[in-house]
Amino acid sequence: MTQSSHHRRIQASMPLKITHTPIIDQGVAHQKRAEIKAHFSNTYDTYERLFECLKDDEAYYLKPEPLRHPLIFYYAHTAVFFVNKLRVAMLIEHNIDDRIESMMAIGVDEMSWDDLNDANYDWPAVAEVQAYRDQVRELVLQQIDELPLTLPVGWEDPFWIILMGIEHERIHLETSSVLIRQMDLKHVRSHQDWPHYPDDHDAPDNHLLPVAGGTVVQGRERPGSTYGWDNEYGHNQTIVKEFKASQFLVTNQEFLSFIEDGGYLDQQWWTTEGWQWRTYKNAEHPTFWLQRNGQWYYRTMTEEITMPWSWPVDVNYLEAKAYCNWLAARTGKPIRLPTEAEYLRLYDATVGAVYPEWDHPPGNIDLAYTASSVPVDLFTFGAQGFGDVLGNVWQWTESAIDGFDGFEVHPSYDDFSVPTFDGKHNLIKGGSWASTGNEVLRDARYAFRRHFFQHAGFRYIESEHQVNQKFNTYETDELISQYLEFHYGDEYFGVPNFPKACIDAIIPHIDLQNNARALDLGCAVGRSSFELARYFQHVDALDFSTRFIRNAINLVEHGDVKYLIPIEGEITELKSFSLSELELGDRANNVEFAQGDACNLKDKFSDYDLVFAGNLIDRLYQPRQFLQSISERIKPGGYLVITSPYTWLEEFTEKENWLGGTKVNGENVTTLDALRAELKPGFAEVTLPQDVPFVIRETARKHQHTVAQLTIWKKHQ
Amino acid sequence: MTQSSHHRRIQASMPLKITHTPIIDQGVAHQKRAEIKAHFSNTYDTYERLFECLKDDEAYYLKPEPLRHPLIFYYAHTAVFFVNKLRVAMLIEHNIDDRIESMMAIGVDEMSWDDLNDANYDWPAVAEVQAYRDQVRELVLQQIDELPLTLPVGWEDPFWIILMGIEHERIHLETSSVLIRQMDLKHVRSHQDWPHYPDDHDAPDNHLLPVAGGTVVQGRERPGSTYGWDNEYGHNQTIVKEFKASQFLVTNQEFLSFIEDGGYLDQQWWTTEGWQWRTYKNAEHPTFWLQRNGQWYYRTMTEEITMPWSWPVDVNYLEAKAYCNWLAARTGKPIRLPTEAEYLRLYDATVGAVYPEWDHPPGNIDLAYTASSVPVDLFTFGAQGFGDVLGNVWQWTESAIDGFDGFEVHPSYDDFSVPTFDGKHNLIKGGSWASTGNEVLRDARYAFRRHFFQHAGFRYIESEHQVNQKFNTYETDELISQYLEFHYGDEYFGVPNFPKACIDAIIPHIDLQNNARALDLGCAVGRSSFELARYFQHVDALDFSTRFIRNAINLVEHGDVKYLIPIEGEITELKSFSLSELELGDRANNVEFAQGDACNLKDKFSDYDLVFAGNLIDRLYQPRQFLQSISERIKPGGYLVITSPYTWLEEFTEKENWLGGTKVNGENVTTLDALRAELKPGFAEVTLPQDVPFVIRETARKHQHTVAQLTIWKKHQ
Repeated sequence: MTQSSHHRRIQASMPLKITHTPIIDQGVAHQKRAEIKAHFSNTYDTYERLFECLKDDEAYYLKPEPLRHPLIFYYAHTAVFFVNKLRVAMLIEHNIDDRIESMMAIGVDEMSWDDLNDANYDWPAVAEVQAYRDQVRELVLQQIDELPLTLPVGWEDPFWIILMGIEHERIHLETSSVLIRQMDLKHVRSHQDWPHYPDDHDAPDNHLLPVAGGTVVQGRERPGSTYGWDNEYGHNQTIVKEFKASQFLVTNQEFLSFIEDGGYLDQQWWTTEGWQWRTYKNAEHPTFWLQRNGQWYYRTMTEEITMPWSWPVDVNYLEAKAYCNWLAARTGKPIRLPTEAEYLRLYDATVGAVYPEWDHPPGNIDLAYTASSVPVDLFTFGAQGFGDVLGNVWQWTESAIDGFDGFEVHPSYDDFSVPTFDGKHNLIKGGSWASTGNEVLRDARYAFRRHFFQHAGFRYIESEHQVNQKFNTYETDELISQYLEFHYGDEYFGVPNFPKACIDAIIPHIDLQNNARALDLGCAVGRSSFELARYFQHVDALDFSTRFIRNAINLVEHGDVKYLIPIEGEITELKSFSLSELELGDRANNVEFAQGDACNLKDKFSDYDLVFAGNLIDRLYQPRQFLQSISERIKPGGYLVITSPYTWLEEFTEKENWLGGTKVNGENVTTLDALRAELKPGFAEVTLPQDVPFVIRETARKHQHTVAQLTIWKKHQ
Repeated sequence: MTQSSHHRRIQASMPLKITHTPIIDQGVAHQKRAEIKAHFSNTYDTYERLFECLKDDEAYYLKPEPLRHPLIFYYAHTAVFFVNKLRVAMLIEHNIDDRIESMMAIGVDEMSWDDLNDANYDWPAVAEVQAYRDQVRELVLQQIDELPLTLPVGWEDPFWIILMGIEHERIHLETSSVLIRQMDLKHVRSHQDWPHYPDDHDAPDNHLLPVAGGTVVQGRERPGSTYGWDNEYGHNQTIVKEFKASQFLVTNQEFLSFIEDGGYLDQQWWTTEGWQWRTYKNAEHPTFWLQRNGQWYYRTMTEEITMPWSWPVDVNYLEAKAYCNWLAARTGKPIRLPTEAEYLRLYDATVGAVYPEWDHPPGNIDLAYTASSVPVDLFTFGAQGFGDVLGNVWQWTESAIDGFDGFEVHPSYDDFSVPTFDGKHNLIKGGSWASTGNEVLRDARYAFRRHFFQHAGFRYIESEHQVNQKFNTYETDELISQYLEFHYGDEYFGVPNFPKACIDAIIPHIDLQNNARALDLGCAVGRSSFELARYFQHVDALDFSTRFIRNAINLVEHGDVKYLIPIEGEITELKSFSLSELELGDRANNVEFAQGDACNLKDKFSDYDLVFAGNLIDRLYQPRQFLQSISERIKPGGYLVITSPYTWLEEFTEKENWLGGTKVNGENVTTLDALRAELKPGFAEVTLPQDVPFVIRETARKHQHTVAQLTIWKKHQ
């Protein structure tokens, strides 16, 4: 039993008693209420105690990171968050302080779209914020007394908001400790409640130890036994190939070799992003290192100490990545950072009892032992003795954070996760000495920009398996999102899915050949192409818009897609779907998407059994020429299918080129008349024209509601 | 019996036997087929015979009117019309000659939107057109033999198209005779079939004779006993006050006084339009007059003769109007042209048997006697001896042509009447010597631009009753038409009328006061204002758009409106409605429309029992300010009603002014949240928000389908 091993070496010694995160699916309501109350008070207290590490009020207004707010913001922010979320959830009717609440709500970190121009801020006094915090404390305590509480607490329940506020403050407890660590030492003081670990020793040799392959399952069900953030729910399953992992986190000692080998000055080890950051910062060593008189020193949260060589190095992802690239070159091995799944494979293989069920933390975590890192070999896990599988410092992974299948945004905090699903926020795993509450859970998923600092380091792995670096970010292009919803999303006003309805309407009227080939012209984001692929051996799918085609290809590649659609004004909703849930996945690879101009097709697009031109002709600049040329690309006996609402507009088609909707020799010529006149020589009209309605959602309340006409033409033999 | 009187003076003497227009609700089908066949042949023959008055082929290519096509166009046009209409009605599958048919289809007269640039035309040879006409003759004869014929012939029947082609040619028979009359004499020859009347005598004294007031009923029912144009159908009833009418049409003699008094050179007698025309043409006398060596001569269709002083003067409306103004000034009497109804009142009082039931034409009409005018006292009608109540020359009226209630466009000829419903085409009544077929009917309604020449003169009347010169033209402004359809037109997708639904949804929730006052803000074309007027004693209705307000005022003034809505491309549909058919007419005068800015209302818009802001707030530039200021204009205990789909767009409202659909302090704020926050201090929310859907038609196939939210707020007492 590995857990026993560390008990021999270190005693839980922190003066702050950090309570475990509450179990919310068991117990008795009034006891749970008391437990949550204590949990809140403890969190609130601990957060305020952290700020006692600032030497004076002046320190609250300094900015250790130029792109982030001063600490006064964060001191108020966790209280403001309670008020704002209680308001959003309509649990309270009045706010407490307009000024503080509008100033301290957003701008948590660099990733925010907030304007950090100092001129915009006239920060309140610390005492003022303290008075505000006191008011909020009373408010929350009162809410905890009064809000209805039933177990389990679901994520729509009022108490979820209380737990959210607590967990939110625990995140800031850790991130604020990092900001304090980044402050000039003269503004910080040592504090008995926040002692660093006193010892160091020679760094242990690091070895690559084998980790067996296997399946990693992620994704919580609701309601679970503890509070969770939205990005933890859903379903995800990853098959991990066997790999080797470094026994210990990379120590300061180990990292020194990279520095001494000129690693910070050698662009070859760095990603483009990494090199940009390094150059901008002129970084030559880890941010919490400093060199004086040829000696290396180390910055803890509140002190400078001689370099503790056996402690893990604190770096951002970019530095960790550069180190791995350097090490891979030096060793000739495929060294890299683990993915999230690889980390979890190691975790599942080595960590026994899982928080919050353990009695004593099996690692340097949960503020249980000290307010700093400890030697990397102090806490080990599993038979092979892996150090710090959890705790000490967070471990950077190769994985950019993303939602699982079935991801849903929590309605009261819709920008917690979604803005980070951009391929630019990498997951950190395992927690640090400062991680408490939800942060300690196996299922927790925190991600930061790759150049950000946390109490974070890394473990490297050796694997022949390459990481797919392509990230499937969520679609924010309004038109693309509109079309994704149109092709794959909900039905509105009871109108069935249009591309599917079109293909369904065609099939009964055509003779399907074996190995038949179809061409989907104006395929947009591809739904009709996939529907055609149910019946046709090969489908070429073309659109004039590369934006559409890029998205369709992306969809085949990833099998799923996420997109934001407008609800009202700038309020949006994240939606997603997968080809498999629409039963389109099996034959998606039979569809070949490409950019193309329907009026000027390449020669290779020929010999089709069916050409589907869905809502295309009234957007072509030469529709008549299109009709003439397309018939040459259809096999004798093949079909041309046209749908259109015949919305002729001069912005797309010069009036003289409109097929119909015109006066010819003074007489009205409808587009249907014109289609019949144009196609009659070469085609027979297979059946009467059919009306197929469609709805395109613009906002939750506004839609385009259109009725296309579908005609089917069979080319003469 | 007046009819007998003229028989003593003139014998029907024309060599051309023009058949009466066929009765289509009686008879035996095979006989009717033969009758129509003869009628067609006679019309076709007569038309060709008219062109024999041209001296040579060269004459076909000259343009007697610079803004109109040469006669070769008209020679072909009546044949082309048969082919095109048979094609449109899908009675024939193939056309005969693409080139002729596309060149000769449109550009009939100046009012057409065709391009008269000569460079666009490479006219065919006369022989070519003749050959074409021969082919068409065969085609039509064949169609007459083969098309199904049942009696009565309805306007959707195939034979209606045949009759339409015949009547169309009869119109051009007359208008082409005018063009020939306008040609230089050297290109025209006398023709035995087209003799002018040989005699003249001293012009009779003209007197004003009384005509009793009464009701004039117009509007044919379908199917009738003869072919009719679309503008003849529907319902119209006019109460005509007693007036006096000149016994005779104004003779050349009588008109000479105006010329000799300097009438053509004195702007005071002319309308603005008339003076513009006179100046442009430098007209100093009627167009068919010419002066040589101090002598006045007169142009008939094919000859110049010494001035026949007892014949009616041929003038356009502008000249007739100037004469009346001059005569009114000279006599001190309210002299003017009659309206269409006044003309018909005279007609009904004096004309006995009505065409086509008469045996012999009671006037110089139907090509029965001669191919020119005759003295104005040759044919008299009624006990008082009114001359030329019908026949001789057409009589200009003050009335611009318009459709009757229930007007419907004939689907095969949708631009026969609608383009003339523009307030710029005045009706001419009574027919001329060249009028045949439908033109001779009491119910016929032909109208021309006011500066056009026909075989037309005038009779003046004396009446204290002023003519309402305001013409209710049809709306072509696309946005206005869209809103007229939205407010008053058809329902789409089963969604009930939105403004009505809103007011209906409010009424159950409010306490209605006696003599209550309502304000409709953003009233657009006014439907909600009229609906409010059902319940409120006074309604002020404001919109920022003067286009909308102008239209709403117009609607109250006229009680009805016509508008064009798009079907597909440039194909449109004329729609109309009246306030009375929507049962909105009774209280329409309780609505006061005015242009106004909801964000900056004049002081007088105050003390309302209810303010309705329908789909307004998301189009305001200062919605928050609006909410603040509007509450001051509502009485204590009064109501504010807001509907909106909350479609916030930066083009209307700067983002910082959006009420909702925004992130405030990082939290989503919906517009409903914001409304509640803004209005709560002053108002109570009367009931839960209601969803009210609406559909705005863009084309026959494309619509906006939106769901507004309706909230009702009661101001604190």
